[in-house]
Amino acid sequence: MNGTRTMMDFLEEPLPGVGTYEDFNTIDWVREKSRDRDRHREITNRSKESTWALLHSVSDAFSGWLLMLLIGLLAGSLAGLIDISAHWMTDLKEGVCLAGFWFNHEHCCWKSNTTFTDRDKCPEWKSWSQLILGHGEGAFAYILNYLMYVIWALMFSLLAVLLVKGFAPYACGSGIPEIKTILSGFIIRGYLGKWTLVIKTITLVLAVSSGLSLGKEGPLVHVACCCGNILCHLFTKYRKNEAKRREVLSAAAAAGVSVAFGAPIGGVLFSLEEVSYYFPLKTLWRSFFAALVAAFTLRSINPFGNSRLVLFYVEFHMPWHLLELVPFILLGIFGGLWGAFFIRSNIAWCRRRKTTRLGKYPVLEVLVVTAITAVLAFPNEYTRMSTSELISELFNDCGILDSSKLCEYVNDFNSTKGDDLPDRAAGPGVYTAMWQLALALVMKVFITIFTFGMKVPSGLFIPSMAVGAIAGRLLGVAVEQLAFYHHDWAIFSGWCSQGADCITPGLYAMVGAAACLGGVTRMTVSLVVIMFELTGGLEYIVPLMAAAMTSKWVADAIGREGIYDAHIRLNGYPFLEAKEEFSHKTRAMDVMRPRKNDPPLTVITQDAMTVEDVEAIVSSTTYSGYPVVVSRASQRLVGFVLRRDLIISIENARKKQDGILRSILDLSPFTVTDETPMEIVVDIFRKLGLRQCLVTHNGKLLGIITKKDVLKHIAQMANQDPDSILFN
Amino acid sequence: MNGTRTMMDFLEEPLPGVGTYEDFNTIDWVREKSRDRDRHREITNRSKESTWALLHSVSDAFSGWLLMLLIGLLAGSLAGLIDISAHWMTDLKEGVCLAGFWFNHEHCCWKSNTTFTDRDKCPEWKSWSQLILGHGEGAFAYILNYLMYVIWALMFSLLAVLLVKGFAPYACGSGIPEIKTILSGFIIRGYLGKWTLVIKTITLVLAVSSGLSLGKEGPLVHVACCCGNILCHLFTKYRKNEAKRREVLSAAAAAGVSVAFGAPIGGVLFSLEEVSYYFPLKTLWRSFFAALVAAFTLRSINPFGNSRLVLFYVEFHMPWHLLELVPFILLGIFGGLWGAFFIRSNIAWCRRRKTTRLGKYPVLEVLVVTAITAVLAFPNEYTRMSTSELISELFNDCGILDSSKLCEYVNDFNSTKGDDLPDRAAGPGVYTAMWQLALALVMKVFITIFTFGMKVPSGLFIPSMAVGAIAGRLLGVAVEQLAFYHHDWAIFSGWCSQGADCITPGLYAMVGAAACLGGVTRMTVSLVVIMFELTGGLEYIVPLMAAAMTSKWVADAIGREGIYDAHIRLNGYPFLEAKEEFSHKTRAMDVMRPRKNDPPLTVITQDAMTVEDVEAIVSSTTYSGYPVVVSRASQRLVGFVLRRDLIISIENARKKQDGILRSILDLSPFTVTDETPMEIVVDIFRKLGLRQCLVTHNGKLLGIITKKDVLKHIAQMANQDPDSILFN
Repeated sequence: MNGTRTMMDFLEEPLPGVGTYEDFNTIDWVREKSRDRDRHREITNRSKESTWALLHSVSDAFSGWLLMLLIGLLAGSLAGLIDISAHWMTDLKEGVCLAGFWFNHEHCCWKSNTTFTDRDKCPEWKSWSQLILGHGEGAFAYILNYLMYVIWALMFSLLAVLLVKGFAPYACGSGIPEIKTILSGFIIRGYLGKWTLVIKTITLVLAVSSGLSLGKEGPLVHVACCCGNILCHLFTKYRKNEAKRREVLSAAAAAGVSVAFGAPIGGVLFSLEEVSYYFPLKTLWRSFFAALVAAFTLRSINPFGNSRLVLFYVEFHMPWHLLELVPFILLGIFGGLWGAFFIRSNIAWCRRRKTTRLGKYPVLEVLVVTAITAVLAFPNEYTRMSTSELISELFNDCGILDSSKLCEYVNDFNSTKGDDLPDRAAGPGVYTAMWQLALALVMKVFITIFTFGMKVPSGLFIPSMAVGAIAGRLLGVAVEQLAFYHHDWAIFSGWCSQGADCITPGLYAMVGAAACLGGVTRMTVSLVVIMFELTGGLEYIVPLMAAAMTSKWVADAIGREGIYDAHIRLNGYPFLEAKEEFSHKTRAMDVMRPRKNDPPLTVITQDAMTVEDVEAIVSSTTYSGYPVVVSRASQRLVGFVLRRDLIISIENARKKQDGILRSILDLSPFTVTDETPMEIVVDIFRKLGLRQCLVTHNGKLLGIITKKDVLKHIAQMANQDPDSILFN
Repeated sequence: MNGTRTMMDFLEEPLPGVGTYEDFNTIDWVREKSRDRDRHREITNRSKESTWALLHSVSDAFSGWLLMLLIGLLAGSLAGLIDISAHWMTDLKEGVCLAGFWFNHEHCCWKSNTTFTDRDKCPEWKSWSQLILGHGEGAFAYILNYLMYVIWALMFSLLAVLLVKGFAPYACGSGIPEIKTILSGFIIRGYLGKWTLVIKTITLVLAVSSGLSLGKEGPLVHVACCCGNILCHLFTKYRKNEAKRREVLSAAAAAGVSVAFGAPIGGVLFSLEEVSYYFPLKTLWRSFFAALVAAFTLRSINPFGNSRLVLFYVEFHMPWHLLELVPFILLGIFGGLWGAFFIRSNIAWCRRRKTTRLGKYPVLEVLVVTAITAVLAFPNEYTRMSTSELISELFNDCGILDSSKLCEYVNDFNSTKGDDLPDRAAGPGVYTAMWQLALALVMKVFITIFTFGMKVPSGLFIPSMAVGAIAGRLLGVAVEQLAFYHHDWAIFSGWCSQGADCITPGLYAMVGAAACLGGVTRMTVSLVVIMFELTGGLEYIVPLMAAAMTSKWVADAIGREGIYDAHIRLNGYPFLEAKEEFSHKTRAMDVMRPRKNDPPLTVITQDAMTVEDVEAIVSSTTYSGYPVVVSRASQRLVGFVLRRDLIISIENARKKQDGILRSILDLSPFTVTDETPMEIVVDIFRKLGLRQCLVTHNGKLLGIITKKDVLKHIAQMANQDPDSILFN
């Protein structure tokens, strides 16, 4: 029963530091899970002894649920706060409310008691020119407004980049690549800490308000994960165990997407499909709970002022026709091309930033991009409004009362039946809108490439969706006009007679948005489910799915990696992709160290070594672990010991004159034979979450394969630079 | 490069039979996946050689999608066929349509040109008494109808049980326990074959029409999986690989649930959460596609005649109040208790059937249960109608025009505003309905225990939901009346004033249904998502989730296993549960064979053995595989060889004078040390899908652990009979 004792000792009287990890290192999933099971077992055993212990056991069992509840509440509240602040500050760029400067434009006009004709032109809301000059007409007023717009934008973005640079460098970007890596078992201290949370929340509001081409959805996932990580500290079960904590982070990621789009089911699927690595089914249920709590917390804060849960609520009335699949698939192809183009250009630009002098001036870079964005954005009303407002407007199906320019059709009220408007000829407003949208599309396509990756929080969902939504709306209006003027063509006959409402341009916008988002992120099921939750109608799943599928195929044909994976590789994080099959015919012996002509493997022998011998080995090498063998001659494997544990143990041995290896030796190291195909080795590393694996031949120890070796080998086989893998 | 050659030989010129499995055996996931990767690699390599090979490679890549499309189409069509037939035959028990005997009651009255007062009493539809006696009034007519009802029911069920018994014994039951086992890697030949498909489809219609307390939803999953399995034969990629085929079956299961409830997302989650074992993310996307195609195929067949995708479409208008969570949680407790009670009683009854003479008379058993069900069901209109109709009616929110007895409230049209009816006093119709529903509840609770497990296709979803829906509606009406008569009570003040519509009894029915279904099956996320897809409103997710959570906790506290797991254990299938953590402190050495005092492990030595030696070992033992060592003295492990392959190879060696072991030796067997905790061993078996694992100590072979050993050990640790595990 020696092994059992060893483990008990390990539990009962741990040496301080044994079992923890260094920064930028990979955790050992097997060990962490074992430790949690030991802990659980002990609590269960003790619970039979006293009522107090029983209560402890029950509270331990429910602590996971409590934690989920807290995460949901906190993430939902923060999301509400961010929404409200961003909305107010975005409007601040254009003017201020006299009834109270803390009201945003919409809110200001709600509070207004006076009557006014245009919905959003109440007397209480003053544009900057009205406030300063006393009137809002003429070229000078326009220029003044323009100037104020640019100045506010620059101020917001300057503050954001200074805060990020000064207090929390990890707060920049979307955070999803890093969260994926952390969830796969990597340690980045401080990445999910309280400073990151505070600074990211504040700077996210600033960055969104500055009008840069970025969204808050990705960073919200980071914010929710920070909440999860911080709240973990309240419960020993999660604080002390890296594997358990990652279960919580998976759920927190789901809550983040849930509040970003108001789509709890989509959020859970996003976490499952996109970010999580280890996702036991128990976590699925808890994630769902956290996502739901977060969504309802956000709704009770009601930041959009319409009691709607979802970010872009749309209701379409008309079914779509099978022939419309052709334009939908075209949008899919566009989305795929855009996704592949964006990833390539953005990665090339980010690499340039990393390797040239450009990276040394992050503040200047942000200011220049903000200035360009603001200067280009103001003259075009579709880029001046916030991107999420733009998407809302593009998704919208024109009703009778819509005053938007996009709905300025030539009216023929005789043929109107109820709320359904027939297809009509586009009026001048629609044509103007088309031009403006086309310009907005070009601008968004290019500016987003330079924006994503700067030293401010920046999400990709909203800009990608905007690109797709614009393209979709353009195509939708084109098809609509085609159907209106040429309803006698063969392709329209049978389903689109004169005076019928056949084409819904808003649906095209939605399909386009899904296609572009899919092309960039390579999401599949979660994308369709998020979009489904926005409309609530199963009807429109088929177009969305067709576009998402096409987009993924097209983008995959050009480059296999999604944007997050590309950024992971750019940063050299040790992420072992769970979705890609390793399909080369190499074997363990081709990957293991020592290679041919290398010096033999450094091993520790079981008995014939003094503390000094061990110390000499540790100080003369830098490996993070050493196999332990019976004797150097036989090379028969006994176990494995980690460098970090060994160093702590040597110190301890000096003080207490205790055995070194007794309590830190892992007697059950994973082994494979040298003939094992690498595809199986990769599978084992993935599924069990190993850090290292020993290689034997006919029972003799031959070498070792670490996670880094595996990643380097995969990179090499894919004709990539193996030295891009930086961490262990 | 010997290993590579070995594998190439294995691919290029396989001995017939090598690499296949016997009936009632477990597959080796690692080997199957390796084989598929080899196959894929070869096709990719060849694709560079010629255009034809390139086309082959492309068609191979898309064959998965094509297969999904076909499965969706076939499963959707079969579901439509089953729906239509079952509807017609259920009505046949009560009467016949004069306008054409092939019309069901509803359809018959649609076709009618004459005017008639009551919606479903058209002159074309004749009850049996009207047809035979010429009138439908009086005691004699009632008795005649009663008699015809019972006779038809007996005929249907007799035919069903005879067909199952004579042609496809695997067609009985719901099939989900077996499908779970098959998906985990077990082989049951014919379980998903064409005969099972044909007979199950026919007998499912008969069983549902006979009025037995069973549903068609579970069996539809089996039917869809049969479709998947049969369609696999069209594609080499899936026909020849057991692992790839199981990916398809997972998707087919999703399609099955998708058509059963009209809930594609819920179906995919059901497959992921409940039935699938190996579910790579690639499969998630394909499953979703299959589920969607199936759902839309079913909708275009339109069996319910209302263009609705979902089985029970409901639309609620009123939000719920936080205080209503109390009755919802009560329903959750009821659901959990019912689930635990049902599982215990049903398993006890099934065990009795297996062990006593009862099991020898399946036909008689079915006839007796049908007779009792029919005799008890006819007098009560809520048991006489089909169970899905009953559930529909219970879920329904009473509108102004509803003629159902459940909606016979005391009307006060002055207070009616629009479509929203205020809470009203229950009329005599409601009170009668309450009594009848209470009786129906008692009957369903008991008769279902005896029905599930008989030799006819029988699903559990619908009866479980019916029990919950009745209980929920009863509670809902009770709360509603309480709120109506006592709206001045403190608990109602503030949200339920006089004349307001506060309580929706239909929502209570729905929550009750979810709770009971959850208690029996222990589904969580998929249950809530299926229910969400029925209503389409995120509003009602919280009540559903509260009830489902409570129900699962209560049921788990009484007994850990869901009904499907209980049936798997009853049948002794080798199913390694992926959800349960193994939490005992045993080690590999405690589980491996040989045990202490056993004769030593039978091994084959690498070189010093003749064909005759090997043959002697094979014929003197019954193990399904043998470790290969360097020499008996050193016990250093070389590889592992399967008995089945060895026998084939010996035959072949005789004919061709070839080496035995060369092409069948697995040079990369999985090994663990004797000190490895069993929790890690169980994890490895689960995640990698192993059949066996060798145990070493300091590099020397000590013993072997098979999947059966693991399962027996788990059973033993849970104080269950280890000999209940029958298969390997």
